[in-house]
Amino acid sequence: MAELSAVFLNCTLKPSPAVSNTEALARKVIEWFDQSDVESEIVRIVDYNVKPGVTSDEGDGDEWPLILQKIKQADIIVIATPIWFGVRASIAQLVIERLDGTYGERNEQGQYPLYNKVAGVVITGNEDGAHSAAETTLFNLTHLGCAVPPNPDTYWVGDAGPGPSYLEAGQDHEYTKRTTRWMALNLVHLAKALKANPFTEPIPPPGAELEPEDAAAAIQEDLLGG
Amino acid sequence: MAELSAVFLNCTLKPSPAVSNTEALARKVIEWFDQSDVESEIVRIVDYNVKPGVTSDEGDGDEWPLILQKIKQADIIVIATPIWFGVRASIAQLVIERLDGTYGERNEQGQYPLYNKVAGVVITGNEDGAHSAAETTLFNLTHLGCAVPPNPDTYWVGDAGPGPSYLEAGQDHEYTKRTTRWMALNLVHLAKALKANPFTEPIPPPGAELEPEDAAAAIQEDLLGG
Amino acid sequence: MAELSAVFLNCTLKPSPAVSNTEALARKVIEWFDQSDVESEIVRIVDYNVKPGVTSDEGDGDEWPLILQKIKQADIIVIATPIWFGVRASIAQLVIERLDGTYGERNEQGQYPLYNKVAGVVITGNEDGAHSAAETTLFNLTHLGCAVPPNPDTYWVGDAGPGPSYLEAGQDHEYTKRTTRWMALNLVHLAKALKANPFTEPIPPPGAELEPEDAAAAIQEDLLGG
Amino acid sequence: MAELSAVFLNCTLKPSPAVSNTEALARKVIEWFDQSDVESEIVRIVDYNVKPGVTSDEGDGDEWPLILQKIKQADIIVIATPIWFGVRASIAQLVIERLDGTYGERNEQGQYPLYNKVAGVVITGNEDGAHSAAETTLFNLTHLGCAVPPNPDTYWVGDAGPGPSYLEAGQDHEYTKRTTRWMALNLVHLAKALKANPFTEPIPPPGAELEPEDAAAAIQEDLLGG
Repeated sequence: MAELSAVFLNCTLKPSPAVSNTEALARKVIEWFDQSDVESEIVRIVDYNVKPGVTSDEGDGDEWPLILQKIKQADIIVIATPIWFGVRASIAQLVIERLDGTYGERNEQGQYPLYNKVAGVVITGNEDGAHSAAETTLFNLTHLGCAVPPNPDTYWVGDAGPGPSYLEAGQDHEYTKRTTRWMALNLVHLAKALKANPFTEPIPPPGAELEPEDAAAAIQEDLLGG
Repeated sequence: MAELSAVFLNCTLKPSPAVSNTEALARKVIEWFDQSDVESEIVRIVDYNVKPGVTSDEGDGDEWPLILQKIKQADIIVIATPIWFGVRASIAQLVIERLDGTYGERNEQGQYPLYNKVAGVVITGNEDGAHSAAETTLFNLTHLGCAVPPNPDTYWVGDAGPGPSYLEAGQDHEYTKRTTRWMALNLVHLAKALKANPFTEPIPPPGAELEPEDAAAAIQEDLLGG
Repeated sequence: MAELSAVFLNCTLKPSPAVSNTEALARKVIEWFDQSDVESEIVRIVDYNVKPGVTSDEGDGDEWPLILQKIKQADIIVIATPIWFGVRASIAQLVIERLDGTYGERNEQGQYPLYNKVAGVVITGNEDGAHSAAETTLFNLTHLGCAVPPNPDTYWVGDAGPGPSYLEAGQDHEYTKRTTRWMALNLVHLAKALKANPFTEPIPPPGAELEPEDAAAAIQEDLLGG
Repeated sequence: MAELSAVFLNCTLKPSPAVSNTEALARKVIEWFDQSDVESEIVRIVDYNVKPGVTSDEGDGDEWPLILQKIKQADIIVIATPIWFGVRASIAQLVIERLDGTYGERNEQGQYPLYNKVAGVVITGNEDGAHSAAETTLFNLTHLGCAVPPNPDTYWVGDAGPGPSYLEAGQDHEYTKRTTRWMALNLVHLAKALKANPFTEPIPPPGAELEPEDAAAAIQEDLLGG
């Protein structure tokens, strides 16, 4: 069994078996993970029936619970998204919205269930928008409980305007190859550092100027009342 | 001597001695740092002669080198910024632009000088824009070398449209108090975790599909050539 | 028959008959439109089967063509969206992605089909993110062909952190009431100004340093080849 | 005398006489303006002593008032900015912050002084960030009073990661040439349409559910009280 596990949430708009540029770049990250004793799984979100909403189970055939389980079991979470109109794809936003449901849960330490996981992003687009897609996604994941290493992203974009996609461009871009390796190694490093020294403090209750001894009780109230 | 040190870069537009709402919230974070054996310093950027540019010394009286030295010596870097027009203040952008100069340096491990530091943000505004200011700033700092814990931000904003500022509103907002504590404790935790397990890999050279043994040589070339 | 027509694309995540805060604010804009001889229709996107994709008909029961027809017939297009995680909802992003399909069409003047329409936005959220949602959406709509008046938005957000929604807060916010009126009147004014003086130039062909007389031919090639 | 006038606010970080890529692209827009009887002026902001702040005169040698006068006299306002770290330059943010001072003024129609002007953007960067820079800047300008035509922007960016600048890349990019022309013609068209049909309504007072006859009085109060 591998030392660490990673889940890649591929947010392409195209259902299987269509070729996904975003998956192609994700697979490059996985090549580095393979060398680092990290077991990886890719989940193409559009292949599942994931309903709009902000809970962990929207019922009526909603398959989000299957995906959420994979997320909870992983040490490393990578959101892989194409760029459309300068920002992340609707499917990536859908994934983040569905993760809102985890705010209502607490683990044994009184933390959100994504605490002590690390997050990264993989982004592809014909052009412009990688910074926007990366920054929004990574920040959202820190609110959900993830930590983020330096250089937590790899992306490929072409120059201004319409143009070839990542695969058409040949997957041979120096900067993208460099950041792919960089991201992979840094995610692994931080995941190990958190295994050795996990966050142990419960998340603070609203207001949060309580003495430590009052915190656990307040958190219980928070969960019951919220 | 304290176990850890933090530098707060206050990016208010107002020179001293004008009252800074952003500093007022930063001081709340410092109260938590004081309890955690973290020594803090606030630098109000507009009180210095910081020239526009993307190098570490723009010459001709430029005082950025003084500030950069403080940043390099800190374990925790917090950018504290007001919101103007929905995004971070011009002074925060200026700080990030000047940090571009650190890309040309390497530490003993062949990393950017901000590696193994942790980053957080403090944001205040009459209204709307905290997510934008936070996400852009934190992402930029990860590219510069910082790691980011979960819940790495605290902010206060009023509701839609013009309105009172943080101090006028009374500094007593439950969510802001909660996130202030949360951010402070998580920054400290991650800083300690990285002291125990620092990133040790040199940053990869362009291309970066080299065998590990070739990396050091390539990095040397990168530095000489770049 | 009314002088102008407006379509509101409500991008709430909640299907009918659930109450939509975003619709509630959209209806306030409609009150002003009613006084200005503008006929309004609200389309709640999640009530339709709108498939992910970037064409105008993704087949297999896709109901986007019905919505696109309404958009093409309107003089004023308003995207109404909740904020989730600091940005526009996934459904708003889905709508923009589907409008990508219109880039492949030209009207009689050789323009995109959304030319000579005007665009505005309505945004609601518990907190923070209105500027981001507005700016991304309006910019996307200008690329698709719409013009934007001054003060093209109305939004309601509460202060920092979780809190009541627009309807719970009582719909009586001074700034929001002001901008609702402002937006409505300015959209109407610009729509009338463009009726009187429509953009008539065909969109330029790639490269676009041709003499005017060559442009029409190049555009034809563009359409045939693209 | 030309029919229309345009002011380009060049927000490069480099003082004259350094070569500005952003200015180089702005000059391409001016070539089209020259053919359309539009008189153009470029103001390189860093060549002036523009102090941080949010008023129209920060005193003590502040040269913003000179620039603001040029802005008020122009029919077309173009903010030209480089990209740094995925967003607009600090100088562009500074310009927007200083325009905050115009919110305190009203023209003869009771509108902000930038009403009935049209806005566009010119953006250059080695890579990624044009959408972000454009959307934030254009939205800010609509709040200040400007209207925005379709395709109101031209940009040049290279592909992912560091690379050549606009001038080094040869200024010969098909998409950028196309959007340069497109933007120029659309700005001119909208400026003329607003000359023929200017916005005439005063901006609404706070609250803004007054009868029209009460509005003028309320606006007077707004100005005196605000």
